[in-house]
Amino acid sequence: MELKLEPLEGGVTEAKGFRATGISCGLKDGGYKDLGIVYSQKPCETACSFTNNQVKAAPVMFDLARIENKISAVLVNSGNANCLTGKTGDENVLEMARLTEQFLSLPEDSVMVASTGVIGRKLPMDRVTYGIEKICKMVKSESDIKNFSHAIMTTDKKPKNVAYEFKIDGKTVRVGGSAKGAGMIKPDMSTPHATMLVFITTDALISKSALQSALKDAVDTTFNRISVDNDTSTNDSVFLLSNGMAGNTEITEDSETFSIFKEVLAKVCLGLAKLVVKDGEGATKLIHIAVKNAKSENDAEKIARAIADSYLVKTAVFGQSPNWGRILAAVGYSGARFDIAKVRLLMNDLVIFENGDVNKANESRAGGEMISPEINLTIDLNLGKADFEVWTSDLTCDYVKINANYLS
Amino acid sequence: MELKLEPLEGGVTEAKGFRATGISCGLKDGGYKDLGIVYSQKPCETACSFTNNQVKAAPVMFDLARIENKISAVLVNSGNANCLTGKTGDENVLEMARLTEQFLSLPEDSVMVASTGVIGRKLPMDRVTYGIEKICKMVKSESDIKNFSHAIMTTDKKPKNVAYEFKIDGKTVRVGGSAKGAGMIKPDMSTPHATMLVFITTDALISKSALQSALKDAVDTTFNRISVDNDTSTNDSVFLLSNGMAGNTEITEDSETFSIFKEVLAKVCLGLAKLVVKDGEGATKLIHIAVKNAKSENDAEKIARAIADSYLVKTAVFGQSPNWGRILAAVGYSGARFDIAKVRLLMNDLVIFENGDVNKANESRAGGEMISPEINLTIDLNLGKADFEVWTSDLTCDYVKINANYLS
Repeated sequence: MELKLEPLEGGVTEAKGFRATGISCGLKDGGYKDLGIVYSQKPCETACSFTNNQVKAAPVMFDLARIENKISAVLVNSGNANCLTGKTGDENVLEMARLTEQFLSLPEDSVMVASTGVIGRKLPMDRVTYGIEKICKMVKSESDIKNFSHAIMTTDKKPKNVAYEFKIDGKTVRVGGSAKGAGMIKPDMSTPHATMLVFITTDALISKSALQSALKDAVDTTFNRISVDNDTSTNDSVFLLSNGMAGNTEITEDSETFSIFKEVLAKVCLGLAKLVVKDGEGATKLIHIAVKNAKSENDAEKIARAIADSYLVKTAVFGQSPNWGRILAAVGYSGARFDIAKVRLLMNDLVIFENGDVNKANESRAGGEMISPEINLTIDLNLGKADFEVWTSDLTCDYVKINANYLS
Repeated sequence: MELKLEPLEGGVTEAKGFRATGISCGLKDGGYKDLGIVYSQKPCETACSFTNNQVKAAPVMFDLARIENKISAVLVNSGNANCLTGKTGDENVLEMARLTEQFLSLPEDSVMVASTGVIGRKLPMDRVTYGIEKICKMVKSESDIKNFSHAIMTTDKKPKNVAYEFKIDGKTVRVGGSAKGAGMIKPDMSTPHATMLVFITTDALISKSALQSALKDAVDTTFNRISVDNDTSTNDSVFLLSNGMAGNTEITEDSETFSIFKEVLAKVCLGLAKLVVKDGEGATKLIHIAVKNAKSENDAEKIARAIADSYLVKTAVFGQSPNWGRILAAVGYSGARFDIAKVRLLMNDLVIFENGDVNKANESRAGGEMISPEINLTIDLNLGKADFEVWTSDLTCDYVKINANYLS
């Protein structure tokens, strides 16, 4: 079956029956929006992916206990991570869900909660309570993707929305998502890192197990392959909600349509993942690292991640310096199998190193390539058939300034 | 046996029979010193420790082949790493050793070589040859620790010298060392990272196997526990030369005096390791991280290194912010076993977190502590009996600036 995919402008509100909005309730200074909600007119099958950090924020523990439930809304606050907040934190997240259920007349246990912001501060529940009442009233009748996008931001500079429309058996189906995340990014969720929060909705009718399987695959090849600073957050969460309102024949793991759904979902996730890296704290470059022809995928992954995590490679890219020596030094300490005599290193399309030696002519040309906002590094090991790719950002003075001052 | 230890002012030239000096031969721009030599009047038993990076510079491969030899001199250049330089690189290092042997009238295969600087550039051998002739003449009659210290520097701001004197059976014995290293620091040598180069000399008479065993232990607990930027260099090397000129009864692994020698050597190594971290590129703080009472040493190490490698912890310390949430987030993703309810976190002597919650009073006091140039972070897991400690520096705008511009 051929896939005709239409990109849409919006994000989490593009699928039928979903609304979202955002307000300020006083968690952030300066009147910035800090409380958001995603709401579905019909209860949703849900698949989630949470941080693998052993220190998990209260809302993550809370959502994990609701993972089998039908979900109608996800409430999200920024400005406070509700993490390492003890028993009070657990009580507060329960109260947030309970109030949302009450004000939206939803069944018990049908709301999930996400938080991002400073760790170790208790939520000011008087402000949160007031905010929940207000936002629930609003989302019953209106939807505003811009306000939602701003409500989930912390150090983000830009809203991050991706959505696509396609057909299944003549029915229009949409998958769309909105994300936040700029620092503390290296998703390692049994599926992402940052605090990265991702909200994806679809009106596809799809079985719960197919939804879970599709999300796991999509997260593994997108959010789990980006890194800004190699710190795994306590709050990373990806929510995928499907309300079935597109009216398509149900997608199951056995149906022909499953691979199409997976492809679209992966495209939404990759789009959002790249937006997160591009908006990485202080970032000026998107760096794509592709390791090719390794002995094993594990070897390819080790090398890709060693380069992506190297302070020296990331500062060199910031300096627009084609410092291939630092890249090969990272290959060397990655722990992967390789033979330096067989390694080919490319910067964008220029071969910089092969047959154990530098290509002098291309090295001087590479200076020009480094001015580009997107840098492709290809490391061809010529040893086997396994590939791995990751995306990262450069390491800049602004990254240091942002994080020297931000309490997160 | 009680150890009376006298600190000395110098480094690699304090032990009897050793001389060192440095000159400029034109590898660095601006006439800075870039060629150094350590020379012993008697051939030395030698123990070495080299980078575990699979990409090893030509001099490292060269020295590895001479590891069993008696060594009389180590020639070292800065400004060029002679790494990833193909066959020419191998030929050049052999020529450097051969010339040194010739000009100092030393037996064949009795010289080792070390290099640090830019990766992937061939050495200008005309300048190097001229320099070797000049420095060999000088070191026959004179010694200048200051010139040597400057000749081995790259981005270092300060010379790094540590030496001690003690008595064995009435004989005065000295152990002294000189080091360079500021960036690309995370020694992982079957023993250090950076390019870190360390030259240690002793006039003790000691068996080769005792010398090797003492160095391995000392490197494991000192150079292998420091990290500036988590990049492992292709050129890291530690040289330990003993010429026996103190006239003591030979130290062997069975002799009573071995533990004394080991203690002094470890003190020299720890002193140098701390100087390397303090002079870390752009660093403003020395951070000591002690993990206590873990289930296993491996758990303790995972946590200590996760904190030491965290961009967010390092930028917070630079910002003088007592951001304990980032520290516990790193504990969480370290992969080590812990129970957050049992964890006690101290900044200097202040308990910041215990019983699953922040100590609010101490948290506000901690702001004052963060002004100190040395920050101690203690993570007591209260789970077992294993400890591990590491030293690192903060991550600053100057680090980024230095590495965005430096070709290494």
